[in-house]
Amino acid sequence: QRARAIGLAPGVFAPGPNNAITDVAGVRVGHETVTLGDSVRTGVTAIIPHGGDLYRDRVPAALHVGNGFGKLLGVTQLRELGELETPVLLTCTLCIWQAGDALAQYMLAKPENANVRSINPVVGETNDGQLNATRARPGIAAAVNRALANADSGRVAEGSVGAGHGTVMFGWKGGIGTSSRKLPASLGGYTVGVIVQGNYGGVLQMAGVPVGQLLGRYAFQRDVERAAGTPPGAGGFGDAGAEQGDGSCMIVIATDAPVLSRNLERMGARAVMGLARTGSSASNGSGDYVIAFSTSPRVRRSPDATLSTNDELGNEAMSALFQAVTEATEEALYDALLMATPVSTRAGRVNPLPRDSVRVLLQARGIRAPR
Amino acid sequence: QRARAIGLAPGVFAPGPNNAITDVAGVRVGHETVTLGDSVRTGVTAIIPHGGDLYRDRVPAALHVGNGFGKLLGVTQLRELGELETPVLLTCTLCIWQAGDALAQYMLAKPENANVRSINPVVGETNDGQLNATRARPGIAAAVNRALANADSGRVAEGSVGAGHGTVMFGWKGGIGTSSRKLPASLGGYTVGVIVQGNYGGVLQMAGVPVGQLLGRYAFQRDVERAAGTPPGAGGFGDAGAEQGDGSCMIVIATDAPVLSRNLERMGARAVMGLARTGSSASNGSGDYVIAFSTSPRVRRSPDATLSTNDELGNEAMSALFQAVTEATEEALYDALLMATPVSTRAGRVNPLPRDSVRVLLQARGIRAPR
Amino acid sequence: QRARAIGLAPGVFAPGPNNAITDVAGVRVGHETVTLGDSVRTGVTAIIPHGGDLYRDRVPAALHVGNGFGKLLGVTQLRELGELETPVLLTCTLCIWQAGDALAQYMLAKPENANVRSINPVVGETNDGQLNATRARPGIAAAVNRALANADSGRVAEGSVGAGHGTVMFGWKGGIGTSSRKLPASLGGYTVGVIVQGNYGGVLQMAGVPVGQLLGRYAFQRDVERAAGTPPGAGGFGDAGAEQGDGSCMIVIATDAPVLSRNLERMGARAVMGLARTGSSASNGSGDYVIAFSTSPRVRRSPDATLSTNDELGNEAMSALFQAVTEATEEALYDALLMATPVSTRAGRVNPLPRDSVRVLLQARGIRAPR
Amino acid sequence: QRARAIGLAPGVFAPGPNNAITDVAGVRVGHETVTLGDSVRTGVTAIIPHGGDLYRDRVPAALHVGNGFGKLLGVTQLRELGELETPVLLTCTLCIWQAGDALAQYMLAKPENANVRSINPVVGETNDGQLNATRARPGIAAAVNRALANADSGRVAEGSVGAGHGTVMFGWKGGIGTSSRKLPASLGGYTVGVIVQGNYGGVLQMAGVPVGQLLGRYAFQRDVERAAGTPPGAGGFGDAGAEQGDGSCMIVIATDAPVLSRNLERMGARAVMGLARTGSSASNGSGDYVIAFSTSPRVRRSPDATLSTNDELGNEAMSALFQAVTEATEEALYDALLMATPVSTRAGRVNPLPRDSVRVLLQARGIRAPR
Repeated sequence: QRARAIGLAPGVFAPGPNNAITDVAGVRVGHETVTLGDSVRTGVTAIIPHGGDLYRDRVPAALHVGNGFGKLLGVTQLRELGELETPVLLTCTLCIWQAGDALAQYMLAKPENANVRSINPVVGETNDGQLNATRARPGIAAAVNRALANADSGRVAEGSVGAGHGTVMFGWKGGIGTSSRKLPASLGGYTVGVIVQGNYGGVLQMAGVPVGQLLGRYAFQRDVERAAGTPPGAGGFGDAGAEQGDGSCMIVIATDAPVLSRNLERMGARAVMGLARTGSSASNGSGDYVIAFSTSPRVRRSPDATLSTNDELGNEAMSALFQAVTEATEEALYDALLMATPVSTRAGRVNPLPRDSVRVLLQARGIRAPR
Repeated sequence: QRARAIGLAPGVFAPGPNNAITDVAGVRVGHETVTLGDSVRTGVTAIIPHGGDLYRDRVPAALHVGNGFGKLLGVTQLRELGELETPVLLTCTLCIWQAGDALAQYMLAKPENANVRSINPVVGETNDGQLNATRARPGIAAAVNRALANADSGRVAEGSVGAGHGTVMFGWKGGIGTSSRKLPASLGGYTVGVIVQGNYGGVLQMAGVPVGQLLGRYAFQRDVERAAGTPPGAGGFGDAGAEQGDGSCMIVIATDAPVLSRNLERMGARAVMGLARTGSSASNGSGDYVIAFSTSPRVRRSPDATLSTNDELGNEAMSALFQAVTEATEEALYDALLMATPVSTRAGRVNPLPRDSVRVLLQARGIRAPR
Repeated sequence: QRARAIGLAPGVFAPGPNNAITDVAGVRVGHETVTLGDSVRTGVTAIIPHGGDLYRDRVPAALHVGNGFGKLLGVTQLRELGELETPVLLTCTLCIWQAGDALAQYMLAKPENANVRSINPVVGETNDGQLNATRARPGIAAAVNRALANADSGRVAEGSVGAGHGTVMFGWKGGIGTSSRKLPASLGGYTVGVIVQGNYGGVLQMAGVPVGQLLGRYAFQRDVERAAGTPPGAGGFGDAGAEQGDGSCMIVIATDAPVLSRNLERMGARAVMGLARTGSSASNGSGDYVIAFSTSPRVRRSPDATLSTNDELGNEAMSALFQAVTEATEEALYDALLMATPVSTRAGRVNPLPRDSVRVLLQARGIRAPR
Repeated sequence: QRARAIGLAPGVFAPGPNNAITDVAGVRVGHETVTLGDSVRTGVTAIIPHGGDLYRDRVPAALHVGNGFGKLLGVTQLRELGELETPVLLTCTLCIWQAGDALAQYMLAKPENANVRSINPVVGETNDGQLNATRARPGIAAAVNRALANADSGRVAEGSVGAGHGTVMFGWKGGIGTSSRKLPASLGGYTVGVIVQGNYGGVLQMAGVPVGQLLGRYAFQRDVERAAGTPPGAGGFGDAGAEQGDGSCMIVIATDAPVLSRNLERMGARAVMGLARTGSSASNGSGDYVIAFSTSPRVRRSPDATLSTNDELGNEAMSALFQAVTEATEEALYDALLMATPVSTRAGRVNPLPRDSVRVLLQARGIRAPR
């Protein structure tokens, strides 16, 4: 059951038909979940901006770094040229270089790229090492190719799938989440879609309800309880990093609005504002990154074109898109939590949020499912 | 009545004794409220890091830009050198250059600065032009000097005072707010103080309660209502910019933790996460800036010293400070709203949030004053 | 006599007809030189991008910071919105806030701006305090208005005029310089113009000839001579900051190529490469800034437009513009030195480079005036 | 024969004993040159900051991006935390992800890192695809391990070795170069060392002598000749990218001065000023990056330390280090050109600069070997 079904519907704008990043026409998402024995629980999620020649028919793109403790690939070229020339992948921290190599190979192997000698794969990661035997480092290349092959439009699987297989949020099972917003026609009618790989912590709040504190599991809990002289709660973390809210969050934004890299970067910054509303304060160890791109055909560019003619939204017209990003990010993160399923390895088991308890807590605050 | 008195006490850490930026020892704040006839309603607020020679005994400092639609003075040198050499002032948009000139003059006139030929005043602003006859541009230099002279430790006046005299938040009267957090001893025992000049909009939420929607006044309201086919609410804005959440928010952070500019900048980024929790998505026209400095004597530096020996917190030790910044910023912004008093000019009158209604709304969600 | 006349013609591209920033059609430059008694020697230089309504018919623009020790006004909004809404002014360090205030007033006073309540003046400065009695702080507002009124196309006065009145370069008199490049038609035929306010130091080289060392005046000279055990030269500096190459350099670039802020910022970075070729290594105390804008009608934008349609050069087409920026900046800086005239105040007299000696030194290396 | 032997000794400071990055005590460099059949000519160069536990005894570090067209790994974490936790590798563009993976594995495999689950390899690249059959993508992991194992102090091999095996500069064979400067005792006596992987173009100048033009091979030559109506020269390029100066330049700086990330980043920016003096204007396709670190024991930090006590040079004391960086970078780049040896593959042969011709050209301008 997605967040919206229990009344977590942040903001003022309405979602698109799938309430997913794929509501932005042309965007496809593919997952490949990797399981090995009782130790490896990881995966790959691919986001493909459009169905054409990504290398030659480039989408403008930008990166916003909320907190840069992470290994994100493709950073400087994405920023310098303001564009994507590959799909975006999400995976596990220690998988990232193999994933980048595989994505490069995937692009180089396309017949139309037979003469390409430079490619800039963009790959993000979060550290699923609490559950996943990340140091085992099984090859991830095959999973990359399958995630790319799996990519589809329409509904997007959420929770403990793909790159969200082994992730943890606020001490509960996290994963992939997605959401979208469609602006009213009077604000342009554009769609904004967000997908997240949630693997972070903090003091969980949902629609402002302090769920983490109410359930007895939140960052700095031990220190706070010790300082208050109260007996330690039962819900604590087993891990000092988690105790401080560590982890990471990868966020990818797509829009069909005609926006170039400068304003895409500004959209990226607003995703962190959605992240904040879930109770993150971006701990030191968190790698919080936002990649944003526009699929509008009116802003595509070819590397060979000396001159392109683009449409571009005026700066004033961006505010509604900013609001949409904040809303959709917050909701995607709730989905990542609420759609997650338990995952066990020999390192332990991580359960999802107790949904019934959450529903009760929300209802007590007047937040309930729409009729 | 401050926010905390009606149950708005964000986060897990406790405030300092004044719940104000002045809980960071040595920091002083001065306001000067400027009123002229029935049109000018503006002012100046000064934040002074310590009582010594600010030019020679410099504090490390940093700037985080949430959204750069603003005229902030002193940007590049603050960043390049990672330090403050003057107090920080807040004022109105069209006052800023005169305020910068007056602050430069104030510094140059000090006997110990008789040979100084370069000074970098740091002055922020928000646009109080909805209420204030900002184009009248009465001289602001005298107010600058009085704000500096007024600066004091202890309790800090909030609401429609100083640089908050004419500001508006979410369509209600805004102003100055302040808050602090003191970390548990096990996390270092450091204090973080925040002061804000709130003049922005969005979809107001308090502790997650959608107060703006419940009271019928929020950004994009007309477009949302039109799209939903509902009759327009009564609470709307008179101003297209406000309708989109425009405005600005200046935030100043002080801490006694030994932190240099790199980590101070990271603290600044977390203030925007607190801002986000009040319902801002940083509209295009918003100038959202955070200036952070450390008062720790163990990080002071002299411009004449070839070598200094500093203490510096490790990166991992920053997470609790990040959390404290997010909490204190959110609370300071609630105070800015709740402590504001009505202000009228010939351009109209802006009332504060109806506190009783807010209290009722919060109580309905289980948020109530501490006993 | 300009640099080109003695063989200093850096690079491979040809200059425009005036070899000045005004070769970019529509750009005008105005100087106002300020002299008071035997102590004040400063001024203002205005660069006006086009003859229309600058506030509503905005030019895309960008800022590159080479070294941020300076007080530049308008930084964050220029970057956030990627555009200029006022002329650019250059002046003296302690003049800058008054100049910003005067430029704001100039814009607000225009009839078409009667309802404007926010304006972002962009003003740069260098510290002419070695010659100029900068602490005297005579009002600069009148000079601002005259510089704006003086602005004209065509030939641009160089040397000890306007904002270059009191500046010093490498221990010799500096000032204003300008140059341009016109790309071959096969590279687009675009024009790049540069104007500089030179007030910096280092180890002067001209076309690679170590003029500073040959004339016995260069940064770190005393330390180098002491270390080498040679007797100190006669040419040294009277000032510890100059001895380390301190000072600043403001650079403004105009182009008629259709380029938006992202690529304008990249052009700005190449101006520092031209600066480097004159012997600067951007000392700590140097404020080295580059502001770049495009005058192409195909990239103008109105603040009221929801959508604009722009042309934009492809990234690959930028390389020739980068080369042009580097060449024109280097030449503009030579002009600033070679066109300067002596300036005296009661603080002393600063002479220009001994042109005849320079010519001889250059000729000895095979660099001579074109026939 | 190194550059200095033919009179190319840029600047005012003296080199260290090896005139190499290894003059910074503790720094080691290792090369592994990779040759396969008649097509693969690439390699790896490793720079190791010190001989201890790099993961726990971290060096402060920074990145400056001159032009971000490149795939550099480790960008955001290096910047966020201001430190290195691995050696730095240089390699070929399409090798970089495998090299990153191998470097991660190398670090994870160390016994002391048995519990490490996150590592941030920093790997740079330039595109040697003109000579090297870069699309063949033979595994590079073994070469990474050998380069790390080969690392040594003392003399550093230059030219067509390691990561410089297949690189091209200005249309001639490029490669690895290195140089150093030791400041006079009166300026602190610190050492700055630079190593470069040169693979870029432009309008080659050496000590300002326009060697590229004199030898008839420079960027934009065809366009310039066509525009001038002169018959095309014989020296042109076979490649449109090279014709525009494309390529890349990786620069690594080490110093024993106690400098933290903020000032290390400023040092990095000055390396681009040295690059500029060789005739680069950083073409669109160039990836020009500078990584700088300090080996001073007084600035080391452990990831586990809550608090560290550091020495830090004052900002004013940085100017001499900036000058040293600019000088050493320029010289290292000359070495990269002059020490290169011819490399042939079935894609063709690239010859080094004709050294005798260069010597003659320099001598004609009065630049000659020291006696």
